[in-house]
Amino acid sequence: MTVTNDAAFTAMTNGEWYFDSEATVQQRNETRLALQKAGQILDNATRMATIQKLLGHTGSDFFIETGFEFSFGQNISVGDHFYGNRNVLICDEGRVTIGDSCKFGPGVSLLTPYHPLDPTERATKKEISGAITIGNHVWLGANVTVLPGVSLGNNVVVGAGSVVTKSYPDNVILVGNPARVLREIPAK
Amino acid sequence: MTVTNDAAFTAMTNGEWYFDSEATVQQRNETRLALQKAGQILDNATRMATIQKLLGHTGSDFFIETGFEFSFGQNISVGDHFYGNRNVLICDEGRVTIGDSCKFGPGVSLLTPYHPLDPTERATKKEISGAITIGNHVWLGANVTVLPGVSLGNNVVVGAGSVVTKSYPDNVILVGNPARVLREIPAK
Amino acid sequence: MTVTNDAAFTAMTNGEWYFDSEATVQQRNETRLALQKAGQILDNATRMATIQKLLGHTGSDFFIETGFEFSFGQNISVGDHFYGNRNVLICDEGRVTIGDSCKFGPGVSLLTPYHPLDPTERATKKEISGAITIGNHVWLGANVTVLPGVSLGNNVVVGAGSVVTKSYPDNVILVGNPARVLREIPAK
Repeated sequence: MTVTNDAAFTAMTNGEWYFDSEATVQQRNETRLALQKAGQILDNATRMATIQKLLGHTGSDFFIETGFEFSFGQNISVGDHFYGNRNVLICDEGRVTIGDSCKFGPGVSLLTPYHPLDPTERATKKEISGAITIGNHVWLGANVTVLPGVSLGNNVVVGAGSVVTKSYPDNVILVGNPARVLREIPAK
Repeated sequence: MTVTNDAAFTAMTNGEWYFDSEATVQQRNETRLALQKAGQILDNATRMATIQKLLGHTGSDFFIETGFEFSFGQNISVGDHFYGNRNVLICDEGRVTIGDSCKFGPGVSLLTPYHPLDPTERATKKEISGAITIGNHVWLGANVTVLPGVSLGNNVVVGAGSVVTKSYPDNVILVGNPARVLREIPAK
Repeated sequence: MTVTNDAAFTAMTNGEWYFDSEATVQQRNETRLALQKAGQILDNATRMATIQKLLGHTGSDFFIETGFEFSFGQNISVGDHFYGNRNVLICDEGRVTIGDSCKFGPGVSLLTPYHPLDPTERATKKEISGAITIGNHVWLGANVTVLPGVSLGNNVVVGAGSVVTKSYPDNVILVGNPARVLREIPAK
């Protein structure tokens, strides 16, 4: 994990409007290259350890299947007992914080970047990010998409194929596009 | 195709609650490695033949594009005249049975695994699967997600991006998240 | 980019019913092989230039992340200032025309192929395509699926995870499955 002190990188990470700089472009390039190389590692423990080094923080008992990709890595923090299935994607322009004991199904996407809605502004390549925070014991089903700025509480379960467009508190099951509360999970 | 007689593997395949064993972990590792290697084969016939050997059964006239992935392979049975486009994913912890003359668009996911909804139970890594059965002449559009326990009848067509959460009989077109019957397909 | 004069390839491109020919099969094989090789190129500029050569047309300031796949390439035309994130998929059996200054999020799929709804007809492997046209300054969010025959006007923004089943004019924000107009984008 490289720590970058570039002003654009800092603005990007902190959710302020920014333009790519030489440093953000170079970091993306380094991450892309590192992921291409990691994808060719056939020893599973070595592959996972290589990926962990690219992430800001990972806890104990970390498992990730093949096809895991991200923009930078260093803005991602993952708690203990993480399991991620195939082809998880995290666009970590903004900070992504994942609690303990989370399970991500295959094809889960966490997306922090956002562009201006106005086409002229968007064409300037101005961008902003919204941090994503996932609580403890969260299960995201297959192909779940989580949008910029979303926080999910503890114990949340999101049904496969859902698109999570806003934040939800602890102990709910979410389903649909956009995701809505299906029901609460009773405390035991 | 390795046949496993391990008790955990058998419980997993049969849809009973189970915990991963040394054998299930090793089988997953072997499959992941075999898929990584198969992905590097540049001769298309050899790539497909290599993948077919990992599957429980495939019929005649089997075609699969690149990016096809699965958990084990041996719990997947595919009928004759199968065409699967890019990046099809089958999590075959439970049995997956696909009939004859099926077409899968790119990004189709068939998902048999399921976890406890209660966070404390889920953290024990207890899991269960639900078998998926796809009839003959079924067309699953791009990015369709099929959930554990679903059976689809013959001639079913599922629109791109649909999430199929329950079973449906023959001759229906399904669309949406969750998928609903759009209309019936008239017999000719 | 190979230019093919085969009758089946021409019918396919032009949105007429067709059956695969030796030429269409060979072109698919060549493209698959070229994409597998391109995916192993570690120098980013070389990887992108290699992919550009497979496309019918690309403008200036073209950027595509890893995992970009397509059926042929030669039926795809991309304007200036294009940015595509990871794992974009374009099934270009029909023509795909993308305007200037477009941004595609990760996992975007543009799908031109279509099969008969009648199972007996579909089993003959008869196929048809519908051209896709994307205007200028269009932003497709992550995991957006665009169906055959869709045209999107200028400045359109499509929310992550949406499934675009029909055409829409300029200056709208679309969300959902199926995608609907959320609101218009005011002119500045």
